[in-house]
Amino acid sequence: MAGAEIDQLIARLAKLPGLGPRSARRAALALLKRREVLMTPLIEALRAAAENIASCGECGNLDTVDPCAVCRAEARNRAVICVVEEVGDLWALERSGAFRGLYHVLGGTLSALDGVGPDDLHVSGLLRRAQHEAVREVILALGTTVDGQTTAHYLADRLVGCGVAITRLAQGVPMGGELDYLDDGTLEAALKARRPVS
Amino acid sequence: MAGAEIDQLIARLAKLPGLGPRSARRAALALLKRREVLMTPLIEALRAAAENIASCGECGNLDTVDPCAVCRAEARNRAVICVVEEVGDLWALERSGAFRGLYHVLGGTLSALDGVGPDDLHVSGLLRRAQHEAVREVILALGTTVDGQTTAHYLADRLVGCGVAITRLAQGVPMGGELDYLDDGTLEAALKARRPVS
Repeated sequence: MAGAEIDQLIARLAKLPGLGPRSARRAALALLKRREVLMTPLIEALRAAAENIASCGECGNLDTVDPCAVCRAEARNRAVICVVEEVGDLWALERSGAFRGLYHVLGGTLSALDGVGPDDLHVSGLLRRAQHEAVREVILALGTTVDGQTTAHYLADRLVGCGVAITRLAQGVPMGGELDYLDDGTLEAALKARRPVS
Repeated sequence: MAGAEIDQLIARLAKLPGLGPRSARRAALALLKRREVLMTPLIEALRAAAENIASCGECGNLDTVDPCAVCRAEARNRAVICVVEEVGDLWALERSGAFRGLYHVLGGTLSALDGVGPDDLHVSGLLRRAQHEAVREVILALGTTVDGQTTAHYLADRLVGCGVAITRLAQGVPMGGELDYLDDGTLEAALKARRPVS
């Protein structure tokens, strides 16, 4: 009842992950009610991001420079490449501060259901990078979903012969996790990978 | 790590109702990953809404025309004005199809805590409209929160002398509501307003 423009805005907000039709309506109303505070800054931020942020040609990270700041950083260990599904995973690892090597963003996982094959992911770039003489290890930091694990197996097969160690993240009980609340698969993995108390 | 632009975008998305820092990050990544499908259409929709949607000078509804489509509609009952807090409430009533009169959007509620006084709401316009000879009834369709009810009392006081009937929405058990799950206040209101079975 407020014209096609507002329906359009709601429809497009509703396509964002985490927003349904109801919350998109609330967001649209908030944007229209507080234009100077919300709407204008958001339009500017979107435009700046659309214009300036691009995928790193080397690793697939999003940044204003190409190669990205991670690939450029002198202090990082260029012998290790950590393969992740999405840029969000790369950010999560960076936030943790636990990894100081380089990354490679696949852009998803193999998925028979969604028709995602190896050519839809950044696999060839990874193989090329892994063959570089400086690289000693490729960490397959993919999700422990069926698709993530299928992709990890596929990549491990392709990486054999590149002359690199192929590793994956440990599976087990998460920090602060109570056994009672963990699923059977995690418990089994944690038991199988049990380690001597030092 | 992906430049100020992306932090800015996340920060501004996170200001929308329903989006926290985490979901704003997911939304920003989705926007950047699927630019043609998500980012560009959203920018266009925001720009079109910002340019074309304005508040109706009469009732406060949001529309591309002023007066808005509701105020212009010939078929609507101009003797009844339904006062709501926000445009979202107006939309909810319009979706229900239960009301065919005119509206008046206050733009909020009185709130001592948030420092919202009568001058911050569209009260004077309501009083002016209520004095129009065609208007016979003003329905105070405000929320049953403390602030909503305070505002309703205040408006009822101000509207005395305008020569209109002042009504409010019925309170009681909502459709499909189970008594067991209702709060005491609603049960008390429903009991007090009980009606003979016809």
